[in-house]
Amino acid sequence: MSTKRRVEICFSPAEYALYQEDFELVVVIDVLRATSAICTALHNGVERIKPVASVDEAREWMSKGFIAAAERNGEIVDGFELGNSPIAYIERAEEFVGQTIVLTTTNGTKAIDVAKDKNTVVIGALNNLDALTQWLIERNEDVLILASGWKDKFNLEDTICAGAIADSLIETGNFIADEDSTVASKFIYRSARDNMFAFLKASSHRRRLRQLNLNEDVKYCLTPNNLTTIPILRDGYLVKLNDRTTPLS
Amino acid sequence: MSTKRRVEICFSPAEYALYQEDFELVVVIDVLRATSAICTALHNGVERIKPVASVDEAREWMSKGFIAAAERNGEIVDGFELGNSPIAYIERAEEFVGQTIVLTTTNGTKAIDVAKDKNTVVIGALNNLDALTQWLIERNEDVLILASGWKDKFNLEDTICAGAIADSLIETGNFIADEDSTVASKFIYRSARDNMFAFLKASSHRRRLRQLNLNEDVKYCLTPNNLTTIPILRDGYLVKLNDRTTPLS
Repeated sequence: MSTKRRVEICFSPAEYALYQEDFELVVVIDVLRATSAICTALHNGVERIKPVASVDEAREWMSKGFIAAAERNGEIVDGFELGNSPIAYIERAEEFVGQTIVLTTTNGTKAIDVAKDKNTVVIGALNNLDALTQWLIERNEDVLILASGWKDKFNLEDTICAGAIADSLIETGNFIADEDSTVASKFIYRSARDNMFAFLKASSHRRRLRQLNLNEDVKYCLTPNNLTTIPILRDGYLVKLNDRTTPLS
Repeated sequence: MSTKRRVEICFSPAEYALYQEDFELVVVIDVLRATSAICTALHNGVERIKPVASVDEAREWMSKGFIAAAERNGEIVDGFELGNSPIAYIERAEEFVGQTIVLTTTNGTKAIDVAKDKNTVVIGALNNLDALTQWLIERNEDVLILASGWKDKFNLEDTICAGAIADSLIETGNFIADEDSTVASKFIYRSARDNMFAFLKASSHRRRLRQLNLNEDVKYCLTPNNLTTIPILRDGYLVKLNDRTTPLS
């Protein structure tokens, strides 16, 4: 009898129902840019992030006095002054230290929302790749990696990041993969890893962000291991793993 | 203004709604084994194939005296004597010449079913790769390649075949791809093409068929260009392109 753990990859929230069974630990990834921004914000002093699925909900929290961030189609939503640019969370770090920020994005917060009932939901990005992978190896539990994709479609950058995590887990000899999506992601990651920026030239979302003059953000999001923070969902809030927090009543 | 045609790849029938808009020509692929069997059956003398979505429907046609084939989970369904083994259609070719065969399979006929309202639905496999690609190039129309996948999930063998078609179309300079699914498929195909059998060792469906002792079928399905037949959907029946047929009333 095998005592190995499984690691599998789901390409988008739309397919989550097909893959989620048997998993109680889900890693949500949205490299460009929601989960990179979440890792960066918590790493730079934000105390917690409340992911919400809709702009209306974010607006409601804002009207109660919370800092709220909203992104749709790569742009900050009208009426908000924050979106999902990780660099904005670095530049305004002083202002945000110890704060709660409410966040809604096109894909990332949707992926968090579909996974929210699992025992453990953590946030991955290229930025926290090694720290997260190491934690998953130590945790030694079946892992489903959920890529946020783009409007329910497959995307390259999340697949590469997911493939990197799966590859490291399988390399330990303690994890196995069964799904073709995992085999393909691992393969794409191995081909891309030495020059991710060039590899992603053709990616549709990178082209989208280039048109919005967000190249600096893209460069930041494609930089592996520039931080070690692992965000985890607790009582509806993303907090730093190992931080003690109490739910907002 | 660009006058180039688009070629895109959809990984499974479940995602068809996200990709189908703007396309009136769909290529359906189910390498292991439905579309390989369809190409092989028509190539070897079957006059037409009626794809149906359910086993019940296939049984109903059988009770009316039609030859019916039904496969689920890689095996012939109880009560039928034909499934989706292409080799069976070669071995029994004499018996089937000029016949109509009703066919239902786990994934392939489902994919044909979701695409059936488009102006043009043709059937692709590795077996008819070059013939189909050449026809698509001459046709010079936007092309959506629909992989049948495995129970709505991504699979490797259909992705490789779809990537091969997209790669050839894009190489002509007359077609462009915009979706990340197409970029990734093209890339996976290029890496796999020199040794497809070895590359697919890890594929989940190949393992499934190996357990069912279907290695000969797998070898046949992974052999590119052993036939030139292009099946096309006309009035609910798959027939050889350029054959004249009249609908069954």
